Parts: sequence; structure tokens; C-alpha cells
Amino acid sequence: MSDRILLIAVDWGTSRLRAMAVAANGAVIEERDSEDGIAKVAAGGHEAAFEALAAGWPREAPAIMAGMVGSRQGWREAAYAPCPAKVDDLASQMLRFSGAGGRRLAIVPGVMLRDPGRDGDVIRGEETQIVGLLAQEPGFAGVVILPGTHSKWASVTGGAIADFQTYLTGELFELLSKHSFLRHSVAEGEGDLAAAPGFRLGVERTAKAGLPFLAAIFSVRVRQLLDNVDRADNLAYLSGLVIGGEIAAAAAAGRLTRSQPIRIIGTRSLARAYRAALTIAGYEAEALDGGPLVAAGLVHLASKTGMLEGNAA
Amino acid sequence: MSDRILLIAVDWGTSRLRAMAVAANGAVIEERDSEDGIAKVAAGGHEAAFEALAAGWPREAPAIMAGMVGSRQGWREAAYAPCPAKVDDLASQMLRFSGAGGRRLAIVPGVMLRDPGRDGDVIRGEETQIVGLLAQEPGFAGVVILPGTHSKWASVTGGAIADFQTYLTGELFELLSKHSFLRHSVAEGEGDLAAAPGFRLGVERTAKAGLPFLAAIFSVRVRQLLDNVDRADNLAYLSGLVIGGEIAAAAAAGRLTRSQPIRIIGTRSLARAYRAALTIAGYEAEALDGGPLVAAGLVHLASKTGMLEGNAA
Repeated sequence: MSDRILLIAVDWGTSRLRAMAVAANGAVIEERDSEDGIAKVAAGGHEAAFEALAAGWPREAPAIMAGMVGSRQGWREAAYAPCPAKVDDLASQMLRFSGAGGRRLAIVPGVMLRDPGRDGDVIRGEETQIVGLLAQEPGFAGVVILPGTHSKWASVTGGAIADFQTYLTGELFELLSKHSFLRHSVAEGEGDLAAAPGFRLGVERTAKAGLPFLAAIFSVRVRQLLDNVDRADNLAYLSGLVIGGEIAAAAAAGRLTRSQPIRIIGTRSLARAYRAALTIAGYEAEALDGGPLVAAGLVHLASKTGMLEGNAA
Repeated sequence: MSDRILLIAVDWGTSRLRAMAVAANGAVIEERDSEDGIAKVAAGGHEAAFEALAAGWPREAPAIMAGMVGSRQGWREAAYAPCPAKVDDLASQMLRFSGAGGRRLAIVPGVMLRDPGRDGDVIRGEETQIVGLLAQEPGFAGVVILPGTHSKWASVTGGAIADFQTYLTGELFELLSKHSFLRHSVAEGEGDLAAAPGFRLGVERTAKAGLPFLAAIFSVRVRQLLDNVDRADNLAYLSGLVIGGEIAAAAAAGRLTRSQPIRIIGTRSLARAYRAALTIAGYEAEALDGGPLVAAGLVHLASKTGMLEGNAA
């Protein structure tokens, strides 16, 4: 099988390392992953961690990598491309170098935005999922939401990331549900939060009724204290408040209009929750699975720079 | 000295127990405190913890207590008085009982609000500071802000707590500055945050420019990553964003108008920070020290119920 591997596409984030062996036609032949996220690998240990995962794959196949691997804490720091960033800009601004073992390597740059109203913003990793979306829908223009620990909302037009904003939604949900005094008022574990009635109520309050997020969160405690609301439903309510708050903040910044198509890129459960929240708030969105889009984005960027041509043994 | 002690006024919160020996004229003769907060004292241990602190004070002096001592986790649960709550309502709805040692005891009720837009709200402890303010300024009508882990904004009119709202500001600041990924972008320790330029910028963004809190907080990371902002100034910036966000949320709920007097009741540094933030946002506020107001409130409630008459040995 290894004679058909022309490229290794790598999604290397904070907590996971994922590598895909890619054939000449761009198809993923084999996929492997490990716990060797950037947070775990010490300085100087990146090549060994990567080659351990890629063992047996051809050493002459170049590797293209995206994610925190290009951060200051990563293998090599890949400078941010300025916004608006076209796919071609990302391809031409990749950091190219060779490993000690001779493998040709490339790291996709993150994207940086300057905005005097909030200093600016940065993306690292999500840009490659957006490239994957553009590889599949070259003419896409609209809003791309990438929910997660740090949710990103990107405005995509003319084949470029025109603008974007980061919300700490996932991290705030984690802090509030597990580390604030509200933890006594909500259940542990998550499940399908978006299906609970509390989720809808939470989204309605912050995204429809306009209750500011900071004015809304104490109600999680009140519901449990005065009304003895079921803790599982209360966790869903908190999730609804936080995601609804994100939607309200994005709408206030003009990031959401009913005329623009909206794509959500994420894991299945998270994408479903965001889609449900957007529906409650009156917006239609289409949810896409993030994993295949990273692969598509990496292959697209590799093909733009000749990395996918004729490296087979 | 003990022959002059007619009343023991007790401020018993989550983390501290504070007892004041009060003379017939309402003056505090002696003050003691301990670490026996409600979070630390086990069920059944409250009387012993209190009597240990009150050792040597006359056993016939009644004790009036406010704070978490009246919560479900406290000595006895004192039901919430409904809003609007007049000072007389709080006095008449105190929970009166006797200790095993025969001491007459009273716990001030908290205050409960019902609001269909956010279920409701609860106060426990801060109502007594507001009573203290009303004891000093009986005709006060305006906004009372009690900043802290859980900031309370009360609307006071006609000698009553007419309405109030809780914001998790202090807890959020703690979580974000010490437990979120933003901790890498801010200094430890606090100092006089309100004096740093970052504080003003933070308040301006959330309280003046209208940047939603959820849309603003990632900029803490961006300032450090792209502009290498000093971490101490960045901590002040985060503080400004959070307090400014609270002010913006309160203003959006109609809790702030330029025609109403505003009092801030709190510790000196916190009250100063809120006053500075309100000034930046265009509001004038007067800061009051919370400690003496608790004593004044407890004495006022005791005097309304005959607890301050003729109990001396």
C-alpha cells in the first residue's frame, strides 16, 4: 500500500496528533492518531513524535501540517498570514523546511486580523478547514462557524477569509459548569444537551430576548435554588445561554444576516447544538463534519504548491 | 466592659464569621472575627463556633445574624422575604429561635425576586448592608451596587429593596484570570488595577463602545500575542472588560440612569475600581465601606424588633 502514498496530511493540535496518508488522487488511504498533542510534546521532540506515528510510510513523502504545530510552542513557528487571506496566500506563505531525517515539511500559516475596536484576532488550524470547505465549494460566500473551546466565526468571500472573530464559548462553558459555584446547580457529563428543554430556553433568553450573557448566568443558580430544576436540564440551559450569548454577540457585530448562507464546521454533537441554537434564533445553517475538511484543506494546499506530484517511491 | 453589651451583631458569610458587641446606643464596643465561615462549619457545629467567638460576652445578650448563616447550609434556614422588601418586612420576617445554651437568636432573611425573563434572583447578606444605608440615609432612592464574587445591583426606593440583579463578575474574573487559557496572558496578583491604562481601555470597550463581553475577552490573548502588552496591564484590561461588561448589562436592563444617585458598597479597592469604571462610562457614584454598614443594618433591624432593649446583665 505504501507505494501509493504521495503525501502525509497532518492535523496537529493542542491535544491530538492526527496523520493521514494521501494518494495521488487526494484520497486518504490510511489514518492514524496519537495523544502527542503540542501541549504534550517537549521542544525538540516534534520530529520524533511525528515519525513514530508515520512509521512505515514512505520517508520521501512530504508532510503538510496545520494547527498548533505552527505556534510558538510547536515544531516551528509559522507566521500568521494577514487578513483577508486567500487560499493562494495561505499556500504561498506556508513555512517550508526539511526534517533532520530529510523529509520535506510544510506548516500552514495561521491567519491574523487587525481591528482597532478589539486589537485583532488570530486563527491557527481552523483556516485549513475553511480551505477544505472552499475546495469543495469554490464559490462559497457566507459565514463559517467553527465551534469549540475557542469558537471562530469567519466571514468568507471571494475565496478568502475576509474577517473573523474568536469567542471563548467552550472554555467558558467548561469553567462555569465545572469550576464555578454553578457546578452545584448542574449535572456532570454532557450527552445531547441540545435536545433538552432547558437548552431552548437558554438560547431564547440570550439570543432572542436579548438578555446580556452576564445578566443571564446567575439564573442557572436561581432555577435550581427556587424551582428545583433538574440538574441535567439546567446544564443544557447553561449551554443554551452560552451558545445563545455567542450568537447574540456575533449578530451584534453584524456577523449574521438572514440572507447569507451559514456553515457550521465541527464535531457532530457540537455542530448539532449550534445548528439547533441558530434555528431557535431564526437562522438556517448547514452542519459539516470537521475531520474530512481538514484533510481536504491540506490536500488542496499541497496540490497548490506541487507537493502532491510525483513523490512516490 | 461586658456589662454594657446589649446585643451581638453577626455577619456570617461563606468564608468568615464576624461578631460585634453592641452597646445600648448602637455603638460597636468590640469586634472579633474568625475563619469559621459557613463553608467550614459542619452541620450542628454553628452554635459552638459562634459561642467560641463570643466567649466572655454576656450570655443574655441576644445575637442578630445576617449572611449565609441563614442559607440551607447555615445554622438555620431563614426563608427569603419577597421583593419589594421594606426594612420593616425584613425585621418582621427574621427567623427567631433560641440556642441550646438559651441565647436568643435571630437570622435576617435573604430577599427573593421573581422575574419571568430570568426566573428570579436571590440576595443573602447584602440586604443588611442596604438596611444599613437606609438607616443612615432613610430617604435614599437610587441604585445600590454591591460588587464582589457575585455583584448585586439593587434598586432602592420608598425604604424598600424594589428590585435587584446578580452578576457573576468577581467569579468570572477569577476563573478567566487564573483558570482559563488567558492566565498565560495576564499577571498574577491584583494591586490597584483601576489605575492601569488597560483598565480604562477595557471599560471603554464593553461599557462605552458596546462590544459584547463574549466578543471582547479573546482580545486579552491577542494583546499579549500580537502586541506583547505588559501582563500586569493586561490583567487590568481583563478587569476593565468584566466590570465594564457588568455595567453594560445593567444599563441594558434599565438599571442605570444618569438622574439616579448611585452608591457602591464594598471593600475599599473594589469600590474604587467600580467607581472608576462608572466614571469612565459616564456615571457618578459614591463609594461606601461595607463593614460599618452591616453593623448599622443589624443594629437597625434589632432596634426595630426590641432586641436592643434592656438585655444587659
